[in-house]
Amino acid sequence: MTPTPDRVAARLSRVRAQMSRDGIDALAVTHLPNLQYLTGFSGSAGAAIVLRDACLLVVDFRYVTAATALAGPLDGLVRVETFAHSYDEAIADLLNASGAVRTGIEAADLPVGRFNAISAGLSANGSAGEAPRLVPTERIVETVRMIKDATEIAALREAGRRLAGVAARVPALVRAGRTEREIADEIELELRRAGFTRAAFETIVASGPNSALPHARPTDRAVQDGDPTVLDFGGVYDGYCVDLTRTVQLGAVSAVMAKLYAAVAEAQRAAIEAVRPGVASSVVDAAARSVLERHGLGEAFGHGTGHGLGLEVHEEPRIGRRSPRLPDVVIEAGMVFTIEPGAYVPGTGGVRIEDDVLVTDSGCEVLTR
Amino acid sequence: MTPTPDRVAARLSRVRAQMSRDGIDALAVTHLPNLQYLTGFSGSAGAAIVLRDACLLVVDFRYVTAATALAGPLDGLVRVETFAHSYDEAIADLLNASGAVRTGIEAADLPVGRFNAISAGLSANGSAGEAPRLVPTERIVETVRMIKDATEIAALREAGRRLAGVAARVPALVRAGRTEREIADEIELELRRAGFTRAAFETIVASGPNSALPHARPTDRAVQDGDPTVLDFGGVYDGYCVDLTRTVQLGAVSAVMAKLYAAVAEAQRAAIEAVRPGVASSVVDAAARSVLERHGLGEAFGHGTGHGLGLEVHEEPRIGRRSPRLPDVVIEAGMVFTIEPGAYVPGTGGVRIEDDVLVTDSGCEVLTR
Repeated sequence: MTPTPDRVAARLSRVRAQMSRDGIDALAVTHLPNLQYLTGFSGSAGAAIVLRDACLLVVDFRYVTAATALAGPLDGLVRVETFAHSYDEAIADLLNASGAVRTGIEAADLPVGRFNAISAGLSANGSAGEAPRLVPTERIVETVRMIKDATEIAALREAGRRLAGVAARVPALVRAGRTEREIADEIELELRRAGFTRAAFETIVASGPNSALPHARPTDRAVQDGDPTVLDFGGVYDGYCVDLTRTVQLGAVSAVMAKLYAAVAEAQRAAIEAVRPGVASSVVDAAARSVLERHGLGEAFGHGTGHGLGLEVHEEPRIGRRSPRLPDVVIEAGMVFTIEPGAYVPGTGGVRIEDDVLVTDSGCEVLTR
Repeated sequence: MTPTPDRVAARLSRVRAQMSRDGIDALAVTHLPNLQYLTGFSGSAGAAIVLRDACLLVVDFRYVTAATALAGPLDGLVRVETFAHSYDEAIADLLNASGAVRTGIEAADLPVGRFNAISAGLSANGSAGEAPRLVPTERIVETVRMIKDATEIAALREAGRRLAGVAARVPALVRAGRTEREIADEIELELRRAGFTRAAFETIVASGPNSALPHARPTDRAVQDGDPTVLDFGGVYDGYCVDLTRTVQLGAVSAVMAKLYAAVAEAQRAAIEAVRPGVASSVVDAAARSVLERHGLGEAFGHGTGHGLGLEVHEEPRIGRRSPRLPDVVIEAGMVFTIEPGAYVPGTGGVRIEDDVLVTDSGCEVLTR
């Protein structure tokens, strides 16, 4: 979707507030989903330079026409710039012209080679003083993106509704003799039929022993009677990603698998019930994890409980254990993320159940039911 | 595809030769297609550390089982390592244990934040002397990947044959009243039917005025009688990417479009005839460009003549104008790339014709005919 001028203004304003807190004059945005969020531009290359009083959308020859058409209705909020040689030279030139001294770069995205190339192009301008330089920053736009605005919520709600529709048709696709790959193809066809632009990631269909691999890829294994099958799929609708997992049992359920399924379902319910504004993301994770631990499945749950959804299928916030490396995010209304506990027992099988939730003022709304 | 032990050994040996020339003891490979090339591992995260006498494949929890299964048949050429905390900490720890002093990193890939995190984890070991450090390198594995081995050539040849089959069915899909998006969907369905795992990129269908945009995305515009339509699509077959463009005219051809088409076709023939071992990539580009310039269409051809194909749909070598930024590569047997001149005239329309060639000892073989 192309954001409206008021949305773009609000997003830029929140980014500029964070820039002020970080003491930077400019932010060079190179992570493409961040660029899309701020300007609506969705080409395969491009950059933005957010200044205090302007936002420059830098595109190459291929995208000038499209970017100019996009920026037109944005009331001067975004100005298109192009260049003769390279993105990095263009970014350095525009920064030099802007007079910015401290320019934030997206340290999680910008490669070392580009950092060095842009740095080499910076030149001190007339007013003697601090030499202009690049400053690594982390998660500025990502943090703003965590809280979805009304347009984004509308897209995600509709996407979730459509994905739930696909999920309802999935059990019928899992039939003895069909290969994982065939079932994955059918699911991707259903996603297109349901109005998704494309699959949000490569569909996972993991049957029998493969179900114990949390990130299996579809193989030519045919599903057999008695198999548990984990099906994890998602779609992009109006630019926004949703993601869902179901575990389907073909034929008789063994006692072990029945217990596994019940434990994971209980863990998912507990995590969903824990979601509300003000709690830490690690608390939501712990709600699921403690249920599985109580069932002796703590070791069988080796991944996090969820991840944010939006323009990317994996974005902030991460819902996982508190750790020095994973910032514990305070849940706020307007966040959208998955809740997907699982338990994987090599030799027996695995179960994962995943839904997408929107945080409301008092709890959450499940988007995929 | 999973490369055989002899292929892996040959690839690692060529990488190590380049490491010696660059004076580095280790290479941290983080660009995922490079990782796949060297080890066969195709997960969504991972890293390799190429040492003089070992190659460590570093994967997280999710991929340990798959990576171990993969490394098994590789006769000890690749050793799987996993970790408790983070990739960057694991890479630093493994480098510390290896005793490497100068470790190359892939500067075009590794983000600044990860460079800083890995650097912070490096520690001088017992033997006093040079402190261990990271050294930016460029294109080490990419250069090795330019020359395809027999297994890769077989995959690309088969992929090209299948893509030509899809191309033969494309003109029948372009019918008045059908939207660009509908035609793009049909093409992607044909790719699946032809045995491709997935489309190599988002299919381009650009009709009428949109054909003058070199990188248009499919819209809801319905194709009309008299339209030129540029159709650019590709598929991934056995891990390898091929790419093809045709321009289809619906109904009567205007004199202007006929001239445009003839000029682009002539430019493509000239470039294909220029391909042989020993010539510079810019010479192949110039062969196409000079034809278009002779027809007064130099300005209408704003992109390069081609790009390498392999595990990525855009890889080395780039076939373009000589410039300080684009290394002029000497064409060698075993390279595979596209030849795709185009001419785009706003208000009139555009034409692009693209085929894929394999460089042979005496010239080239067109893979997509």
